Amino acid sequence: MRIVVQKYGGTSVADASRLRNVARRVIQAHEAGFAPVVVVSAQGDTTDILLQKAYEISPHPSARELDMLLSTGEQISIALLAMAIEAQGYAVISLTGGQVGIRTDGTHTKAKIVGIDTRRILRELGTGRIVIVAGFQGVNQEEDITTLGRGGSDTSAVALAAILAAETCEIYTDVDGVYSADPRIVPGARKLTAISYDEMLELASLGARVLHLRSVEIAKKYGVPIHVRSSFSESPGTMVVEEVKDMENAPVVTGIAHTTDVAKVTVMGVPDRPGVAASLFAALAGRAVNVDMIIQSASRAGINDISFTLAKADMEAAVEAARELEQQLGAEGVVAESGVGKVSIVGAGMISHPGVAAAMFRVIADEGVNIQMISTSDISISCVIEAPFVEKVVRALHKVFIET
Amino acid sequence: MRIVVQKYGGTSVADASRLRNVARRVIQAHEAGFAPVVVVSAQGDTTDILLQKAYEISPHPSARELDMLLSTGEQISIALLAMAIEAQGYAVISLTGGQVGIRTDGTHTKAKIVGIDTRRILRELGTGRIVIVAGFQGVNQEEDITTLGRGGSDTSAVALAAILAAETCEIYTDVDGVYSADPRIVPGARKLTAISYDEMLELASLGARVLHLRSVEIAKKYGVPIHVRSSFSESPGTMVVEEVKDMENAPVVTGIAHTTDVAKVTVMGVPDRPGVAASLFAALAGRAVNVDMIIQSASRAGINDISFTLAKADMEAAVEAARELEQQLGAEGVVAESGVGKVSIVGAGMISHPGVAAAMFRVIADEGVNIQMISTSDISISCVIEAPFVEKVVRALHKVFIET
Repeated sequence: MRIVVQKYGGTSVADASRLRNVARRVIQAHEAGFAPVVVVSAQGDTTDILLQKAYEISPHPSARELDMLLSTGEQISIALLAMAIEAQGYAVISLTGGQVGIRTDGTHTKAKIVGIDTRRILRELGTGRIVIVAGFQGVNQEEDITTLGRGGSDTSAVALAAILAAETCEIYTDVDGVYSADPRIVPGARKLTAISYDEMLELASLGARVLHLRSVEIAKKYGVPIHVRSSFSESPGTMVVEEVKDMENAPVVTGIAHTTDVAKVTVMGVPDRPGVAASLFAALAGRAVNVDMIIQSASRAGINDISFTLAKADMEAAVEAARELEQQLGAEGVVAESGVGKVSIVGAGMISHPGVAAAMFRVIADEGVNIQMISTSDISISCVIEAPFVEKVVRALHKVFIET
Repeated sequence: MRIVVQKYGGTSVADASRLRNVARRVIQAHEAGFAPVVVVSAQGDTTDILLQKAYEISPHPSARELDMLLSTGEQISIALLAMAIEAQGYAVISLTGGQVGIRTDGTHTKAKIVGIDTRRILRELGTGRIVIVAGFQGVNQEEDITTLGRGGSDTSAVALAAILAAETCEIYTDVDGVYSADPRIVPGARKLTAISYDEMLELASLGARVLHLRSVEIAKKYGVPIHVRSSFSESPGTMVVEEVKDMENAPVVTGIAHTTDVAKVTVMGVPDRPGVAASLFAALAGRAVNVDMIIQSASRAGINDISFTLAKADMEAAVEAARELEQQLGAEGVVAESGVGKVSIVGAGMISHPGVAAAMFRVIADEGVNIQMISTSDISISCVIEAPFVEKVVRALHKVFIET
């Protein structure tokens, strides 16, 4: 059985005519001899409408009930897509996350997949049925519905592709591939033919929204080739694979990522004692807050300021956690700032090209922008700057590193 | 544990403010020392909107995918109601039909409950939680979602009340009880304080929409007292119980039911052979068509016409089944008519009062209306007449049998 996993995002299934278009593509794969497993997201703005209903009722709905509510969005999509395929005379069945055997941990709204029981899906594929799967959801040990957090449908798709040993995992979105920068900001951005898992991981973790980080991690771990492409066109998109051929000739910088979804929290005046950072970041982890960059700087002798960045959505929880520890740590205060952004350059070629960091800092300085924090990895360099300058810095970096 | 089951219909949970009202009522029961199990329907016109989405995609969606789609309506309601109760600081959990252990047969869109696994619900009630249950739905042996058909949430509620040995099952609707006739048609209709299961069964099966037939059957079988009342008022509604006290003084006719949701199918010119009716009605049963009244009349020597009535929605399937058998039966043709209605008088007192039927036929004749078919039970008499005359006949019967 040659399995192909296809994942369609919310805009691809937003209405009846788009659902028919997706049905046509799925049937094409079936006719080409593949056994399609199709993962879909909630239609268009369904999730937002459901969230609005929730917040009309309660300012702080519990995560469990939010999952119960939001998971209906994908359930609606799978039923409708199955109907669209039925209507063309093909055998098809829709399965919820629970029915398809996606088992998760118990962290509602941000659950992690712990395993997939493939018995049902293999039975259905074995009878020649096309299988439609609700993305973004699973069930925990209690059989309670959980959701996988932002971009969770990508994760569902890649995890299924991995366990089913699919030939490829096609991720259909409203863009036609991975670009060297966000084309809405950089008109000269280029579509990449291929990109390595590592580069894609960096881009995803640094703010590129085309693929969700966790889905790329799983793809890399299990060697699942991902094809990012548009559901509205037949042209090939971007392959995400282990290694991009001809890497010697590849550009030093493959892509430029940015995000303004960043907040910065500083715990001020912390006595320089062992274990201080450990308690602080353990408390944040306990609240499921993902911290990005961390800087510890001595403000006075024996006294440190600890700054860290994180997603804006987590800022409130982080500040609360930090304030609870304030006394215990002997800190002088906690301040939070949501008006920051991050620009990053990513490229596997950077390993063998020294001086890239210096060149990047020069470009930013030439734009008259102050760098607040810096972090680097083997294949990326990121700078935190004031949010309003992010777009012009991205354009400047693209010009220097990619267009020339 | 004093369990009370409450069921709220779609209009009772239509928006945030109504959900808060329901939450208040549920909390009231909790504060009064009860363990509430709350069954809810889909909000307002959600089911219609979902159906519309389905039919935009496919003229004949499969029953399984319809169930997958429609069950989301109740799932949205339970999550929102749980949030409304959480917001008031009470411990609560919502459960889908599958999670609450409602097992059904495999007849999608018209499934029957085959059993309820109460382990989860008892565990949740045992921890002091209020339990909110998605009505109308269950799961079959395959763990596929099934729905219970029209009025299915009433069935869910009464079945749960039965197996949990609840003290009472409160059915909240947009009317405040069971009336002696439809108040929209008969301005003088009276709210009944109490009614027996048998009378309620007759009324429900004869077209009164306040309670679904199957829910009353289950209530009678397990002796579950039902309290039909309005979610918008505190006044007591109608108790549905085994036997209404003081039945000696009860009126001969308790209520008048009517329906225009009737179709009549006639298989004409069938040779008078044994087994003809058996084949015909077996074929109808095979398509899950419920036949109501049946009349066989000799049109010529050795030749019969067989007429039967059924719900309008089933007419197409019934005609198809009959036409398939036409040759085999040697029939001369099949005609169908959807413009008929049925009026019925119901009362436990009729058993000991002869002459009620004659009086009913007289009233209808006095209105100048022709009676097409008649059927009787111990406690009811029904007449099929032309649909446009139904309302005036109901008013005339109410005047003679109830208002005097």
